[in-house]
Amino acid sequence: MIYVALISYTPDPERTIAAAARVSTSSARASQLMEKLAPQAVDRLLGLLISSGHLSPFEHASFTFAIEGISRVTSHQLVRHRMASYTQQSQRYVSLKDFHYITPATISAKGELEAEYHQMVRAAHALYLKMLDAGIPMEDARYVLPQAAETRLVMTMNARELIHVCSLRLCLRAQWEIVELFEKVKAEVEKVAPRLAAELKPKCYRLGYCDEAESCGIFPTLAEVGEKTQRKR
Amino acid sequence: MIYVALISYTPDPERTIAAAARVSTSSARASQLMEKLAPQAVDRLLGLLISSGHLSPFEHASFTFAIEGISRVTSHQLVRHRMASYTQQSQRYVSLKDFHYITPATISAKGELEAEYHQMVRAAHALYLKMLDAGIPMEDARYVLPQAAETRLVMTMNARELIHVCSLRLCLRAQWEIVELFEKVKAEVEKVAPRLAAELKPKCYRLGYCDEAESCGIFPTLAEVGEKTQRKR
Amino acid sequence: MIYVALISYTPDPERTIAAAARVSTSSARASQLMEKLAPQAVDRLLGLLISSGHLSPFEHASFTFAIEGISRVTSHQLVRHRMASYTQQSQRYVSLKDFHYITPATISAKGELEAEYHQMVRAAHALYLKMLDAGIPMEDARYVLPQAAETRLVMTMNARELIHVCSLRLCLRAQWEIVELFEKVKAEVEKVAPRLAAELKPKCYRLGYCDEAESCGIFPTLAEVGEKTQRKR
Amino acid sequence: MIYVALISYTPDPERTIAAAARVSTSSARASQLMEKLAPQAVDRLLGLLISSGHLSPFEHASFTFAIEGISRVTSHQLVRHRMASYTQQSQRYVSLKDFHYITPATISAKGELEAEYHQMVRAAHALYLKMLDAGIPMEDARYVLPQAAETRLVMTMNARELIHVCSLRLCLRAQWEIVELFEKVKAEVEKVAPRLAAELKPKCYRLGYCDEAESCGIFPTLAEVGEKTQRKR
Repeated sequence: MIYVALISYTPDPERTIAAAARVSTSSARASQLMEKLAPQAVDRLLGLLISSGHLSPFEHASFTFAIEGISRVTSHQLVRHRMASYTQQSQRYVSLKDFHYITPATISAKGELEAEYHQMVRAAHALYLKMLDAGIPMEDARYVLPQAAETRLVMTMNARELIHVCSLRLCLRAQWEIVELFEKVKAEVEKVAPRLAAELKPKCYRLGYCDEAESCGIFPTLAEVGEKTQRKR
Repeated sequence: MIYVALISYTPDPERTIAAAARVSTSSARASQLMEKLAPQAVDRLLGLLISSGHLSPFEHASFTFAIEGISRVTSHQLVRHRMASYTQQSQRYVSLKDFHYITPATISAKGELEAEYHQMVRAAHALYLKMLDAGIPMEDARYVLPQAAETRLVMTMNARELIHVCSLRLCLRAQWEIVELFEKVKAEVEKVAPRLAAELKPKCYRLGYCDEAESCGIFPTLAEVGEKTQRKR
Repeated sequence: MIYVALISYTPDPERTIAAAARVSTSSARASQLMEKLAPQAVDRLLGLLISSGHLSPFEHASFTFAIEGISRVTSHQLVRHRMASYTQQSQRYVSLKDFHYITPATISAKGELEAEYHQMVRAAHALYLKMLDAGIPMEDARYVLPQAAETRLVMTMNARELIHVCSLRLCLRAQWEIVELFEKVKAEVEKVAPRLAAELKPKCYRLGYCDEAESCGIFPTLAEVGEKTQRKR
Repeated sequence: MIYVALISYTPDPERTIAAAARVSTSSARASQLMEKLAPQAVDRLLGLLISSGHLSPFEHASFTFAIEGISRVTSHQLVRHRMASYTQQSQRYVSLKDFHYITPATISAKGELEAEYHQMVRAAHALYLKMLDAGIPMEDARYVLPQAAETRLVMTMNARELIHVCSLRLCLRAQWEIVELFEKVKAEVEKVAPRLAAELKPKCYRLGYCDEAESCGIFPTLAEVGEKTQRKR
């Protein structure tokens, strides 16, 4: 069961983004803009930035999440996003005596296999404990642990990267576990920055078509829609 | 006159860093750590992280500054630090009718040259205005403006990068204007994160020696101290 | 006059990208793929990566350019692209006795203003030299120099970032000088990686529409084309 | 058995770095510097850059490695270094029918446990195959696979990052598998850039002391050497 909690974030994140953006094109002071910008002006400005692809001001708002209950399969995918900061529980320094792991729904759905899966994962963990007792270092004993093993981490991402990562990881071509993770990330952002959260969506919503080889069905592929538009000259 | 104001930052930045760091080596939850860590525990933990060079948890706290009254000389140096976010006033979209510029102290100290300097800068600005009136676009008219021209920007940097940049830019080998800028950045951080601010210092304080060709005098150069230490084997 | 020379690059860049990409989805060895991939296979694979937005393999090929004859206006814009490496001639350590500068075409087109522009720039440079003679440090004397002053630098960018930066800087909304710079960068890439160079183009060619407020006329704006496509469900 | 092959790199990497560095402080052209710099001049210049910590020119030389035979334990550690590019074999798209895995030496050393380890890992793989046969998608079946499972990837890192990563990962506090990986990376670099390879070493060699809590014995800890040096004023 994935657990995501927003433990810290830039206060008033949408106004911070809007104020920074206005500094670029006005002669007003940033500190004044922070005070004066009305909520409607913030909303409108964020909309303009998004539609014109001017995303750099979104970097000024950061969000820090506590994430628990994801597998090492998913944490390995997650940390490939390099424009973010991660501090992950170490399997070298924390022993996994109290063991939790993820079971994919496709396995749960097959009664007999599911039983074998649980049995195998538990046997691997039992051997892990036995190796620790025999003096094998934690960092080595863990080689026997399945990739299903749960991990936890703290992740900080700015709003620009959240928009980018969600465009990839809320796509149904991504693996179910990381989709679920970012649905929960989005739900947390929604509580404090609803305008921003509305931009956390799969890439097809922005493109107007699916750029994968096969569509999940929400949007047609580019091949299906024909040429995007005609050049004027 | 450089103006720096901290307009936004991760609340409780030092505790956020410490809680993230603890997740790595304990089985506690990040959200609990945020509540439970006593100020002394936070201080001690930050000290350990710094002395062992484990700086990645410092990335979880970000600081957003409004910066005004720096020259384009300095903004060009500043944006070379790539692990940060900048939104700068555009000379393409904001006309500099109300013109401000920086005068280096070495020039102010020479009476006659100072007068020539002010005269030249003002003449360049007058030609800038004349070109605007003649229909030259702002983006082109600005080519005549001196590098002394003031600019303003919003900058977001996390605590790890602040430590790194200050290690370089508080060094007296850096140019006086950027030294002054980061002294003011440090003063702003000091108000909300004094333990962190204590780590914003020139690199020689961390190295124990000066690694430049010539020392400013605070620490001896490596050549002067001889071998750092002896290998044990 | 902008001068761009490709001084070094990953040999066989397109094959390197294709071989890396194939490692992701095959059980072949990267070193074998480097030998076995036929030119047509490389072409087809690059095409698939581009059309599906899987751009990370393009990071494995890097290009190093010597760039000369750009203004400090343009170098300041250029170094804002943070996923690249720059080493720029320093105005602190290299005196600009032999002075070159850029004159925008809009100014050249106005005879009288052009004369005033050249006169002003040269007067500023004369004062710069006078200040050096009077013992003002180079780093301070340069404050009087116009932003038109030429600079030179070495820039290394990987192919993914080249695609991204060209999508922004070959757009005619970018300033003419940086457009010209990246046209020359593209021409250099074309000599050694023509398939890649074909992807160095303004963002509208990829989007199928212009996402700026006003189009230059090549593609219609999004408002003009109406909704991009219809959702299927 | 870890396999590392340098499959591509910036030709003449040390000269490229030196030429870029010289552009910063001279009025020579980069393209001329590439031709004129004598090997001894390159060596001396790299030494100066290293000793003064001016490492940015090292970013202009990149190295692309094929890496095979590392565990997912190690690939997960590896990709935490964000200033690099990785393309890794996907467990979602490549089935691991031909299964290889890593056995830590501490386990091999304990006869009875070793047998149990091999038996467990093979049983997990057998269940993986059985699940594939039963129609479980590859991306889900892999949850049962141990972290010992081998993976392969292509990695591109520039010379600056290689220096940084080796300073951490050649330290004997790092896990044995990633130490061995970077010893092989270093051996590959040595063949084409020996001056650079000489700088790929644990951080203690640069610091002159060990900054970890406990030393491996090569250098004393900071506590053991007392104050690094005395401030002069």
